[in-house]
Amino acid sequence: MPWFDLPEAELRTYRTDTVEPDGLDAWWAARLGEAQSAARETTLTRYKPEVYGDTEVYDVEFSGARGDRVRAWYLRPAGAGDGPHPVLVTYIGYGGGRSLPLDHLVWPGVGIATLVMDTRGQGGRWSVGATPDGEGTSSERSEVMTRGIASPETYYYTRLYVDAARAVEVAKGLPGADPSRIGVTGGSQGGALSLAAAALKPADVRVCAADVPFLCDIQRGITLTAATPYREVADFLAVNAALVDAARNTLRYVDNALLASRITADTYVSVGLMDEICPPSTVFAAYNAVGAPKQIEVNPFGVHQHSRVHDEVKVAFVRERLLAGR
Amino acid sequence: MPWFDLPEAELRTYRTDTVEPDGLDAWWAARLGEAQSAARETTLTRYKPEVYGDTEVYDVEFSGARGDRVRAWYLRPAGAGDGPHPVLVTYIGYGGGRSLPLDHLVWPGVGIATLVMDTRGQGGRWSVGATPDGEGTSSERSEVMTRGIASPETYYYTRLYVDAARAVEVAKGLPGADPSRIGVTGGSQGGALSLAAAALKPADVRVCAADVPFLCDIQRGITLTAATPYREVADFLAVNAALVDAARNTLRYVDNALLASRITADTYVSVGLMDEICPPSTVFAAYNAVGAPKQIEVNPFGVHQHSRVHDEVKVAFVRERLLAGR
Amino acid sequence: MPWFDLPEAELRTYRTDTVEPDGLDAWWAARLGEAQSAARETTLTRYKPEVYGDTEVYDVEFSGARGDRVRAWYLRPAGAGDGPHPVLVTYIGYGGGRSLPLDHLVWPGVGIATLVMDTRGQGGRWSVGATPDGEGTSSERSEVMTRGIASPETYYYTRLYVDAARAVEVAKGLPGADPSRIGVTGGSQGGALSLAAAALKPADVRVCAADVPFLCDIQRGITLTAATPYREVADFLAVNAALVDAARNTLRYVDNALLASRITADTYVSVGLMDEICPPSTVFAAYNAVGAPKQIEVNPFGVHQHSRVHDEVKVAFVRERLLAGR
Amino acid sequence: MPWFDLPEAELRTYRTDTVEPDGLDAWWAARLGEAQSAARETTLTRYKPEVYGDTEVYDVEFSGARGDRVRAWYLRPAGAGDGPHPVLVTYIGYGGGRSLPLDHLVWPGVGIATLVMDTRGQGGRWSVGATPDGEGTSSERSEVMTRGIASPETYYYTRLYVDAARAVEVAKGLPGADPSRIGVTGGSQGGALSLAAAALKPADVRVCAADVPFLCDIQRGITLTAATPYREVADFLAVNAALVDAARNTLRYVDNALLASRITADTYVSVGLMDEICPPSTVFAAYNAVGAPKQIEVNPFGVHQHSRVHDEVKVAFVRERLLAGR
Amino acid sequence: MPWFDLPEAELRTYRTDTVEPDGLDAWWAARLGEAQSAARETTLTRYKPEVYGDTEVYDVEFSGARGDRVRAWYLRPAGAGDGPHPVLVTYIGYGGGRSLPLDHLVWPGVGIATLVMDTRGQGGRWSVGATPDGEGTSSERSEVMTRGIASPETYYYTRLYVDAARAVEVAKGLPGADPSRIGVTGGSQGGALSLAAAALKPADVRVCAADVPFLCDIQRGITLTAATPYREVADFLAVNAALVDAARNTLRYVDNALLASRITADTYVSVGLMDEICPPSTVFAAYNAVGAPKQIEVNPFGVHQHSRVHDEVKVAFVRERLLAGR
Amino acid sequence: MPWFDLPEAELRTYRTDTVEPDGLDAWWAARLGEAQSAARETTLTRYKPEVYGDTEVYDVEFSGARGDRVRAWYLRPAGAGDGPHPVLVTYIGYGGGRSLPLDHLVWPGVGIATLVMDTRGQGGRWSVGATPDGEGTSSERSEVMTRGIASPETYYYTRLYVDAARAVEVAKGLPGADPSRIGVTGGSQGGALSLAAAALKPADVRVCAADVPFLCDIQRGITLTAATPYREVADFLAVNAALVDAARNTLRYVDNALLASRITADTYVSVGLMDEICPPSTVFAAYNAVGAPKQIEVNPFGVHQHSRVHDEVKVAFVRERLLAGR
Repeated sequence: MPWFDLPEAELRTYRTDTVEPDGLDAWWAARLGEAQSAARETTLTRYKPEVYGDTEVYDVEFSGARGDRVRAWYLRPAGAGDGPHPVLVTYIGYGGGRSLPLDHLVWPGVGIATLVMDTRGQGGRWSVGATPDGEGTSSERSEVMTRGIASPETYYYTRLYVDAARAVEVAKGLPGADPSRIGVTGGSQGGALSLAAAALKPADVRVCAADVPFLCDIQRGITLTAATPYREVADFLAVNAALVDAARNTLRYVDNALLASRITADTYVSVGLMDEICPPSTVFAAYNAVGAPKQIEVNPFGVHQHSRVHDEVKVAFVRERLLAGR
Repeated sequence: MPWFDLPEAELRTYRTDTVEPDGLDAWWAARLGEAQSAARETTLTRYKPEVYGDTEVYDVEFSGARGDRVRAWYLRPAGAGDGPHPVLVTYIGYGGGRSLPLDHLVWPGVGIATLVMDTRGQGGRWSVGATPDGEGTSSERSEVMTRGIASPETYYYTRLYVDAARAVEVAKGLPGADPSRIGVTGGSQGGALSLAAAALKPADVRVCAADVPFLCDIQRGITLTAATPYREVADFLAVNAALVDAARNTLRYVDNALLASRITADTYVSVGLMDEICPPSTVFAAYNAVGAPKQIEVNPFGVHQHSRVHDEVKVAFVRERLLAGR
Repeated sequence: MPWFDLPEAELRTYRTDTVEPDGLDAWWAARLGEAQSAARETTLTRYKPEVYGDTEVYDVEFSGARGDRVRAWYLRPAGAGDGPHPVLVTYIGYGGGRSLPLDHLVWPGVGIATLVMDTRGQGGRWSVGATPDGEGTSSERSEVMTRGIASPETYYYTRLYVDAARAVEVAKGLPGADPSRIGVTGGSQGGALSLAAAALKPADVRVCAADVPFLCDIQRGITLTAATPYREVADFLAVNAALVDAARNTLRYVDNALLASRITADTYVSVGLMDEICPPSTVFAAYNAVGAPKQIEVNPFGVHQHSRVHDEVKVAFVRERLLAGR
Repeated sequence: MPWFDLPEAELRTYRTDTVEPDGLDAWWAARLGEAQSAARETTLTRYKPEVYGDTEVYDVEFSGARGDRVRAWYLRPAGAGDGPHPVLVTYIGYGGGRSLPLDHLVWPGVGIATLVMDTRGQGGRWSVGATPDGEGTSSERSEVMTRGIASPETYYYTRLYVDAARAVEVAKGLPGADPSRIGVTGGSQGGALSLAAAALKPADVRVCAADVPFLCDIQRGITLTAATPYREVADFLAVNAALVDAARNTLRYVDNALLASRITADTYVSVGLMDEICPPSTVFAAYNAVGAPKQIEVNPFGVHQHSRVHDEVKVAFVRERLLAGR
Repeated sequence: MPWFDLPEAELRTYRTDTVEPDGLDAWWAARLGEAQSAARETTLTRYKPEVYGDTEVYDVEFSGARGDRVRAWYLRPAGAGDGPHPVLVTYIGYGGGRSLPLDHLVWPGVGIATLVMDTRGQGGRWSVGATPDGEGTSSERSEVMTRGIASPETYYYTRLYVDAARAVEVAKGLPGADPSRIGVTGGSQGGALSLAAAALKPADVRVCAADVPFLCDIQRGITLTAATPYREVADFLAVNAALVDAARNTLRYVDNALLASRITADTYVSVGLMDEICPPSTVFAAYNAVGAPKQIEVNPFGVHQHSRVHDEVKVAFVRERLLAGR
Repeated sequence: MPWFDLPEAELRTYRTDTVEPDGLDAWWAARLGEAQSAARETTLTRYKPEVYGDTEVYDVEFSGARGDRVRAWYLRPAGAGDGPHPVLVTYIGYGGGRSLPLDHLVWPGVGIATLVMDTRGQGGRWSVGATPDGEGTSSERSEVMTRGIASPETYYYTRLYVDAARAVEVAKGLPGADPSRIGVTGGSQGGALSLAAAALKPADVRVCAADVPFLCDIQRGITLTAATPYREVADFLAVNAALVDAARNTLRYVDNALLASRITADTYVSVGLMDEICPPSTVFAAYNAVGAPKQIEVNPFGVHQHSRVHDEVKVAFVRERLLAGR
């Protein structure tokens, strides 16, 4: 794809013109409070040692938004022992689920435990999931961008952001976890959830590594690109024109270009200048809003699926902050 | 599209090899019973006489599966007066909602009232809807083929078939309706709902007109075509291979090639021999299972979107059975 | 599709920079005069009362450009009786024909008779037609954007615009018609024909409702979008480079951004800001040229096929002007 | 494309099951007779010697079907002198026109004069034309497969086949031509016209070289492939279902799988086993019907656009028959 | 994609009908001998411990075909110590390179060292490489299916198969390796190389795990699917028709449906019944030829990219054979 | 395609902002010198007189870059005799090979001999070739844009430009050639090679005719269009981000927007304003850098494949300069 967005020099200072809703912090605090009230105990079940050997893997279930049970994997590095270890919460991209633990051996491989949160009502598109969005028992091949979009309280991503914040709380209490060394990471939708979790739980998240994050400067995104998933919103509003104002209002509550100013974690972001799925200006709109120490890796020819080229930089960034001095 | 399915001569006798689940009638009776128990009063509100003039239009809300409130339109022919008139329940194709009443003036235009049922959790793809699938307040741009597919009780289409059967019950009690002259109609997913409603409420449905019906011989459909929506199931099962047996079992409960044998209504079906979305063999699998008087219109070059070519035959078929002798 | 055209604020004042040909009114008067000279009697045949019941339908044939016989449907509202009623002339979108009368029950359903003009040499792409472009006896699957484009006199759209103006003349004389209450409507190519008929017959057209009209600011259209049908012209001129100047000259004669200034009818227009087939600037170029009372409905996420979202506004607009006070 | 058609062994003996219309020869004789009656003088104008140098080029106009004037190029080899030389009539593929003479220097380059017939009403898709289909003055970007298809007399390809046969008659009388050494050639639609001209003028055509010919076993073609131009017919009939029988009847008159049995010229055919545009079984259906001496070149991986691989074989085949012994 | 290949029951016994070239074993022995003669020392360089921590990673260079230097990664499990450990050679899919070691932490994560072989002249399509095909210094975005295809000695895949066999020899001598516990694995092209290496080095390979292997029953593959990379060969031969016989002969030398009979390693294969890139019959053609103990996992709805669903089965299969009793 | 590049007025003065490498002329002189040192004798073999008759055709082999043998065709006009004639070197577009001589009869047809240079390592995509890129014996279906791109010395296009310059040297010494009347021509990649050869051999090339030339202002090209072949570079660099600077440096050496200033030949260029493959600004960047007498033909609606519309102008331009006064 050609360079279809702003020139790089303008990207460096670009800020969203979406206006933050009044009382955004209180609103999110209420959402988290509801979830905490409904929460039940987290369960862990040791998973297939005959496959994973010395890397301990647990099948986890915890309470997310509305108390809905959310599945996860907890993987601990070989030889980690009982001592307190850092835990990185991993979030998944659009359409995928938590997959198999085999797909998450990178972080334990470099010495960091990880809690991989499943994505409610997804997991049917490219990797398997196990968490319904509410009732039912399994994953789903779905499109979720407009589910409940008529109000922020009913919006799908409100629930998912609460799940993400709850995962941070859960991570702190996992066996063998050091609650002072929690990080968040993920790409695309996983990057959006990383930024959101770091923004909603600033006291708990020490490092945030978001690759090509989705759901930043959303109102620009839905008018700038023809690519899904942003396109789902545009297509929906073309038909449901009466909901345009309500939807725009809802989207403000989950816009990481607004939430990012709450982040206090050291933050790593990657971006591709040819990324049509998460256009570079939307990513910079969030990155430029972060006030904490931060670093961005720009892939000048990067399209969305090639966000891995700087992964070693990201791993070093995270290890330095979670393992340093140990 | 070329003729990719069986030759027409074989289509004329083709039957599904999917085996009916034990106790299918009892199972559906239980589903309907649950919905009836949870049902609340149907409401009607007169809608925009300044637009519709002498054609009376009502915005309707009734209780469908689980007692969930389902929206509908009720349109009565100009000059219908108070006397008992036939009512045709109309169901909508995949991804659409009940749209505006303007899109449903055909049946009142030819003298038949119609109750147009909205489709829960759809209405975001090509025509507007107003019915969420459970919680929430609006329509959604969704993919629903695998929602709850792990068991027949949680499957989306179980709920939607119950809505469709409930709509027949509701139609009988509408003001001005003649409960002895109820019909069902629709195309594609709307055709599937027509067949299902005629099968689940055989005593109540006098005529069934299903254009290029979807959800017939489903297990063949998902391995015969690369076109959505059948493809949603194949794509989901490619990723969720552990659910293949469960999903196949679930799909039997909503397969119109099995349900169709319950139909007692006079039945009209149309089919296109080049239809990749609802392949002709799947349509014939249902049609050939109908024991009631029936008629099929075959469009030899028909693809899915060109199912309207025989619409006048369909209208005459319905009028003859609902208006004759009056 | 993203917002690829001018920002909405600029659209509100955008005007074409195509220069009007000298003597445009006289030229069109000559074209209409030729057609009127060659005209024969309009014929009406009652059509399938067993299908349409109380809605009277007639198969119509009238003389269009060059005296060529053009087919149409005439539908009268149930209970219209003999008294003079308003008639709305309906024009069809690109590639389609007059279809079945079943597809045109909206206007009689809201109390207004309609004359549905078939489109010569089309009717093979998505709805059936019955009018050849000159010799032959049936519709055709065709591309007509460059037929005869080497001169305005031989251009296909010159003939079609004359047909459209002739349909207005014919509508005035239909049985049961009130010649003082004639309107025109249609979407896309049908919108273009509505604007053109209102411009060519200003004394006869009281209301004009054009959805996402095609053939406005054509010279911009053919260089702004890769979508058909505008693309047909660009593709043709890429090969027939020697005809570029002649074609540009021809296109001026049928450009509604120039013709629209003649309109005296109250005018309703709809436009989608994501419409690649009829880009919003081209639509505004015509709308902004209308001097008569007017109203535009903007769908901010609207693509071409989703132009129905404001249909109730359009119906109310038309009813108010054709039925008010009766 | 994979091997989607019959295995090669079956292709070698495959025959169409379309039944020939009664009186086919008399019907075509009548068509040719009408054209001959309406014919006017052929005109030749020397064309751009400053570009073509010693290769003499003439811009030709002759009378085709209905007396319509058809454009052509006549190219004579450098150094041909006045003596009688063989002339090969060249026909063009679908959508193209006669192009520039530059595109036709192959045959004069190997010592054979050529008359390149323009294709009426085409010439707007990939090479420029100059012949309208009836009225008008220029080429057109068109789809012609269904133009006039309701009867054989009005069908576009009836006119075009007559043009092709007329071109053979004209070639015999060109200055410098040896009327006893006339051949025909072309690819795709040009191949169809070659076969048709050889069938309609068997006494005049000594050699026929048809690459991947179109319009053979047409009724199979329109149900076997999703590729245009055959697809135009299928798409049209999906919408115009009432014309299926009439169209099938019309297509029999121009089916080269039926006409080919009239050919007496030595015949060369090429075919690609992966050709989706002119599927191999349709080509063999015509080839297998030829009773004259013949040769077929099979490209096992050939798709439609790669039919040139055996061109040297074709040239040698033609030269041997038109130049041998001189 | 639908089920486009043989029914599953036939797949279970399907064998290729391609005939093995005479002297195939001797021919391959000569190729390996040439490479061994030209071989230089393998080099290992410790790679970025600040990123990989306790998982030791080495940047490796060894001599492949013709003595060309091939890059690789060697990853050892955390806590592996000095003792002899099993080593699994990993091969990469079409178009990719060895990528970053981060992408290969699965096998060390489950306790098995891995040598990841880069793919010469690839590495430009979806993951980075570092090995040219001969001269030059870097990876390449390439299509290699027809490089040197005119003879088996010059064919690209002959070189690549030799690289793969050489990688097994190199693995045996790596520091910390147990030469009696060597396995091979990979998906798609990586699966092809796994089968080939197990066939060419039967005495050295104890376990072979090939996911959806490419390059099996190649002559069927290139006529059965329109998907790349098989399509590269068909497209090439359409143009280079004179090379059809030579290419077919060459492809026999690298066809795993022929080579597989040499395999003595315990063999695991996965296959998707909707895989258009490596059609199921081609995969079964190789699997059915294996005489050693074997197991196949069938994904009934599996397309090519969803071959991971059985990865835990594969890991258990490999661990059982390489780690058992330790 | 719409007008996606600069407005025509800006194109007329647009210049690249890529900076020329220091010592570019010396660097190219060294490359040519290496090739000349390694050169062996040119061979000519008379080719198929039974096909080509009086047009003499020779199969040629000469030494290109590194001394690699490059294939070519040499075609002489019928009746050319022995006297010194002008020779035009023809270069081929991306993916094609020298094809059959039949495809190159235009220039001899208008009285000018031509040497058609095959393209190393191509010839597998749309026309057959016979020259490997280094070892091997045949053509290849390849992507070459990134082959050896890590340094200018190893880059594929460095070798190919040297071949092109060598072809000019070889043309001067062909039997019957007039060394003072040498020209170069070609389209797309063939246009790039024409410009490059004219720039690298200014003393030897009298006329240069480049249609829609590729490889001009390359750094703009790879960020402006999503079309291949420029896209190959962008896709490669997305994955190989560490090579971005090296690749950009390499590309400067083969950028015709820089080389063009060396041209002294009379130069003809054609350009299409809708050309996405060779965007108009890149073509003008080279054209505007030419200091010699020049002419450009602009096709306002031209896409890449329709560059033939001005071919007669081109032929006249060349004939005037190579044949005038003879």
